[in-house]
Amino acid sequence: MRTLNVGIIQQRNSENILENSSRIANKIRELSKKGAQLIVNQELHDTLYFCQTESVDEFDKAIQLNDERVKFYQGLARETKTVLIISLFEKRASGLYHNTAIVIEKDGSLAGKYRKMHIPDDPAYYEKFYFTPGDLGFHAIDTSVGRLGVLVCWDQWYPEAARLMALDGAEVLIYPTAIGTESTDSPEEQQRQLEAWTVVQRGHAVANGVPVISVNRVGHEPDPSKATNGITFWGSSFVAGPQGEILYRAPFDKEATEIVKIDMNRSDQVRRWWPFFRDRRIDAYSGLTSRYLD
Amino acid sequence: MRTLNVGIIQQRNSENILENSSRIANKIRELSKKGAQLIVNQELHDTLYFCQTESVDEFDKAIQLNDERVKFYQGLARETKTVLIISLFEKRASGLYHNTAIVIEKDGSLAGKYRKMHIPDDPAYYEKFYFTPGDLGFHAIDTSVGRLGVLVCWDQWYPEAARLMALDGAEVLIYPTAIGTESTDSPEEQQRQLEAWTVVQRGHAVANGVPVISVNRVGHEPDPSKATNGITFWGSSFVAGPQGEILYRAPFDKEATEIVKIDMNRSDQVRRWWPFFRDRRIDAYSGLTSRYLD
Repeated sequence: MRTLNVGIIQQRNSENILENSSRIANKIRELSKKGAQLIVNQELHDTLYFCQTESVDEFDKAIQLNDERVKFYQGLARETKTVLIISLFEKRASGLYHNTAIVIEKDGSLAGKYRKMHIPDDPAYYEKFYFTPGDLGFHAIDTSVGRLGVLVCWDQWYPEAARLMALDGAEVLIYPTAIGTESTDSPEEQQRQLEAWTVVQRGHAVANGVPVISVNRVGHEPDPSKATNGITFWGSSFVAGPQGEILYRAPFDKEATEIVKIDMNRSDQVRRWWPFFRDRRIDAYSGLTSRYLD
Repeated sequence: MRTLNVGIIQQRNSENILENSSRIANKIRELSKKGAQLIVNQELHDTLYFCQTESVDEFDKAIQLNDERVKFYQGLARETKTVLIISLFEKRASGLYHNTAIVIEKDGSLAGKYRKMHIPDDPAYYEKFYFTPGDLGFHAIDTSVGRLGVLVCWDQWYPEAARLMALDGAEVLIYPTAIGTESTDSPEEQQRQLEAWTVVQRGHAVANGVPVISVNRVGHEPDPSKATNGITFWGSSFVAGPQGEILYRAPFDKEATEIVKIDMNRSDQVRRWWPFFRDRRIDAYSGLTSRYLD
């Protein structure tokens, strides 16, 4: 049995970037001591979720991929001998920014990067203001712990993204995330949203016969503009197996630092039972590249 | 509020085609009296699930689309003023057969047909022996109760099929189904499969912001070849709303004849909250028409 020990860090963040990243560093060390081989962080884990308002000053938070903060995580990967999934606000050039995930190999080298392809824009999630949609496409990244399909947050609602990663050989789908509810939604609506978020990602696991790791932030962050009541990030980070079965689920209102074991051989067995890849009608899928067909 | 009253017929079948279809007819009349506007039947609802073995004699069960049995259902639609989803073993020509769903308008006319595009082949589900994969593509069908995305069974594991129907304007996804477990699977594995089947379809509801109606047969049918212990069809027909929320679920071991109310205006609201269609990266989806990318 080829087991992958996945470390998950679901964290409540403050305005203090150094404090956030120091706490993550301590948790990475702790998870590594407990045997983690791969550690997944939440989306934009060093900062508050600054997209609640549109403010040009927030671009100060963006960093380049050779920034000291990236090197800090590279050092941590090397120190702890773990593969790290890092999510950051990337400054690619003046006036050109991305929401980028980087994969750091356990020797500290950069294994690859993914620039968030689907960018949301909703009240309190003004990401289209900050992030240019990724131009790298959907490509799995080879690491010492397997071939990883790293996507980011809003991507998780798109079956196309999951499928393209699986077709590119991803052995696991990974989603750093920042999602929550606004207090004016009814409790029933909040519950439906949380469940929908879980179900659609478990569906990707089923449709592609791969495990899914989704790591979300937790806790309330106020809206600096006071236009809304802020976001209560719903935590509930989870790991699902290749039949969509829940292997682990974090609390919705507490931080979580957890190791989850994934049996990486199971996908091969599941895909024998359910050979969906055998029967895809690629001759009839061209409409998927259309905006709408009606 | 635009409500759609959906009638569901989850039935245990016998070898007697006349008996099966007569029981369905009575249920259609009953559902119509209770206000059903659309009635969805399970896959191949007039017969046993004959694909448990490969036998050329079974082709005797196939019918043409102008067969008396189709006319029988057309008469029923006219009599009960309901739109009917019928699933049948279609003989298109000698040596050319399909697993076909037809949509009958409430005046008895044929609104459209869909030929199952994804054809499974597993022990006890030897469909590739019987059915040529459909050549009609994925097209929604206009009816007096809305534009319907009719797919069949194995299609339900394919996000591509659901998406293409939604892009073609389907207001609801409909899956006549025949699926169950073999007794040598452990109870845990059987449970995982049932849950995966549910989750992946609820995922289609979420990803596309449309309700999903899935109607499965129920009861045990022996394997005529005795190669397996037969199939225990797991019932569990369900209706999910456009956030994947379960509106109704039938028992796993009993027949069910039920009316479920769907709020057809809700999709429009849900798609405002979650505008996934706005942000699809159609410039980066061309790989979906490839068999594999690695």
